[in-house]
Amino acid sequence: MIARPDALPGARAAACLTQFQQRPPLIHCLTNEVVQSLTANVLLALGASPAMVVEPQEAAQFSALADGLLINVGTLNALRAESMRAAVAAANQAGKPWTLDPVAVGALSYRTAFAKQLLDEKPAAIRGNASEIMALSGLLASGRGVDSGDDSLAALPAARELAQRSGAVVAVTGAVDYVTDGQRDWAIEGGSPLMTRVVGTGCALSAVVAAFCALPGDRLDNAATACRVMSHCGGLAARQAGGPGSFTPAFLDALYQLRGEDL
Amino acid sequence: MIARPDALPGARAAACLTQFQQRPPLIHCLTNEVVQSLTANVLLALGASPAMVVEPQEAAQFSALADGLLINVGTLNALRAESMRAAVAAANQAGKPWTLDPVAVGALSYRTAFAKQLLDEKPAAIRGNASEIMALSGLLASGRGVDSGDDSLAALPAARELAQRSGAVVAVTGAVDYVTDGQRDWAIEGGSPLMTRVVGTGCALSAVVAAFCALPGDRLDNAATACRVMSHCGGLAARQAGGPGSFTPAFLDALYQLRGEDL
Amino acid sequence: MIARPDALPGARAAACLTQFQQRPPLIHCLTNEVVQSLTANVLLALGASPAMVVEPQEAAQFSALADGLLINVGTLNALRAESMRAAVAAANQAGKPWTLDPVAVGALSYRTAFAKQLLDEKPAAIRGNASEIMALSGLLASGRGVDSGDDSLAALPAARELAQRSGAVVAVTGAVDYVTDGQRDWAIEGGSPLMTRVVGTGCALSAVVAAFCALPGDRLDNAATACRVMSHCGGLAARQAGGPGSFTPAFLDALYQLRGEDL
Repeated sequence: MIARPDALPGARAAACLTQFQQRPPLIHCLTNEVVQSLTANVLLALGASPAMVVEPQEAAQFSALADGLLINVGTLNALRAESMRAAVAAANQAGKPWTLDPVAVGALSYRTAFAKQLLDEKPAAIRGNASEIMALSGLLASGRGVDSGDDSLAALPAARELAQRSGAVVAVTGAVDYVTDGQRDWAIEGGSPLMTRVVGTGCALSAVVAAFCALPGDRLDNAATACRVMSHCGGLAARQAGGPGSFTPAFLDALYQLRGEDL
Repeated sequence: MIARPDALPGARAAACLTQFQQRPPLIHCLTNEVVQSLTANVLLALGASPAMVVEPQEAAQFSALADGLLINVGTLNALRAESMRAAVAAANQAGKPWTLDPVAVGALSYRTAFAKQLLDEKPAAIRGNASEIMALSGLLASGRGVDSGDDSLAALPAARELAQRSGAVVAVTGAVDYVTDGQRDWAIEGGSPLMTRVVGTGCALSAVVAAFCALPGDRLDNAATACRVMSHCGGLAARQAGGPGSFTPAFLDALYQLRGEDL
Repeated sequence: MIARPDALPGARAAACLTQFQQRPPLIHCLTNEVVQSLTANVLLALGASPAMVVEPQEAAQFSALADGLLINVGTLNALRAESMRAAVAAANQAGKPWTLDPVAVGALSYRTAFAKQLLDEKPAAIRGNASEIMALSGLLASGRGVDSGDDSLAALPAARELAQRSGAVVAVTGAVDYVTDGQRDWAIEGGSPLMTRVVGTGCALSAVVAAFCALPGDRLDNAATACRVMSHCGGLAARQAGGPGSFTPAFLDALYQLRGEDL
């Protein structure tokens, strides 16, 4: 059995959020076609500035200007892969942190090969579900498909291994989220099953992780705070929503109204 | 004059919906850029799992894994056409049903040629407005443009001819929807004019048709139930909405809350 | 100091809106990936018909059929640039007005070169923030980045110069919007800071400008009315919203319910 990590202390999360709101970052999002609007709106609700710049030369130019970069392989194709490689190289050259969301890695071949190559490019953080993190870590030969059938706690050893190998903070998310730097772990509870009935909540979380990784300070705490912010506001919104339709406006409002002391 | 078909019996629709909710399908959506988010959210609200996988090799790989495939030509280009052809071939090889939404076919040349080629690839269902169905059937030389000026009942003979020729169940939708397998027809009333003021309600209906075509049983009844589910929830949402903005959350909530006995 | 122009008279705006609602246009939108859904929903709420047709041949074919064309360079790449050039050429040949939204021009090289080339193609209108309009006018060597740090009034001389050189009506928008044809100017107040926390409100405004440019009559008044419609409804929605999530449904409802006498 895997021992369950401690919960991220509320005071740590509150301090990170306050710091975030004092100097909200500009985040370059190379993400999938389906979730771009929600991703941008989540970052905007938190006070951050999102931008999606897709032409390869411009993607590189912009990644050097932005405070952080998100790479999400959900609708990867050859054109987008070229832009992503250029953006990651430019971010690394400029010393800007980048975050990987390995959507459906393990289940689909092209993106799996691409994501594994990117692991050598020093991601600051990786955020995925249990199947994706297991597939990326190589602890399992392949994932189980697009939806994650694995409990996130069961994937924590794979997450730790992946963190040690890549140097990234790794968040494996599900009913409970776990964030690890390979040595230390935090657990984050909250959220709502309703979040799985709204497209892009996981992808938007990865963007928020990318944004919090632009903060100075302990990257483990910063990434865990991103998870906490989303699960806290998701739980709040679910309690007032009649379904996934009314969830989304309530969720964005909750992110907009959130203050450090709420955590 | 064309005789109006009988309405789909509520008990048939209720039985189909209950069966759908017991084993909700995974649907691969190769759809247009504008409506991907609403399409995914409509499927998620109904309990199904949407995925958009666009790289040609992966699109083929995923279509064999999914329970059904949607092809929507709204923002077709050469790259997306290649992915669609690969996905349709893989779906057919794996025995998975695929559904065609011929957006603006008749009015625009490139997509019209593409959609007519796809008719030879054994679609399980086709969902369009009157102009699109008439143009695809070849009963008229061309459609009238992007919006359908034709009454859906007037297009029923074209829909029947198209069903007989292609082997697909054909849904011609408008103020009233008609679904035919070339021999038998159902009429579906309900809905609201407000649905025409929200982008993607028709495209999302096609995705729901694709999802219901993954059910076993009578494909005519399954496709007609998809139309009934959407028109029922659309009518409900319109009655509580102050406009197209508040319609969408209410519509998704209604889809989420829908149970067989409501039909 | 720059003298502040007079406010657009409410009676002028009311007359333009009434004319718009009597014959709402069909608008071809070649816009960025992130905002397509909101853009379409804003046009639909106002009664207009949006369409996004992206394949180069079809984009040209459709621009000749539509009443107006929007070009937004937010997620420009080589493929989309080809479609945009074809669409602009076809619109000009057919005598249909086209509108340019120079997103992030000045900050990023590829799109800046592209947008400057398009200036020779007789745009009917240009809508941007202060940085973008200054960069496009050439009065400054470059913009300041994606977000506009410049007050819109400070950019009015650049807007006038750009209008004179290109022949377009130029709208420079911010906390107050200014619209100029190079000789005459209008100021438009209203709106809400909350609109900057929702992705695509500026891009959607450009689509509304494109739609109002399809009206006969004074193009300066038409474009200024587009700004007035959006700022009026944005202000209304912000007063009832608890954040950016509840803003969007309220905004679309307000656009749908708007009548000339409200202005």
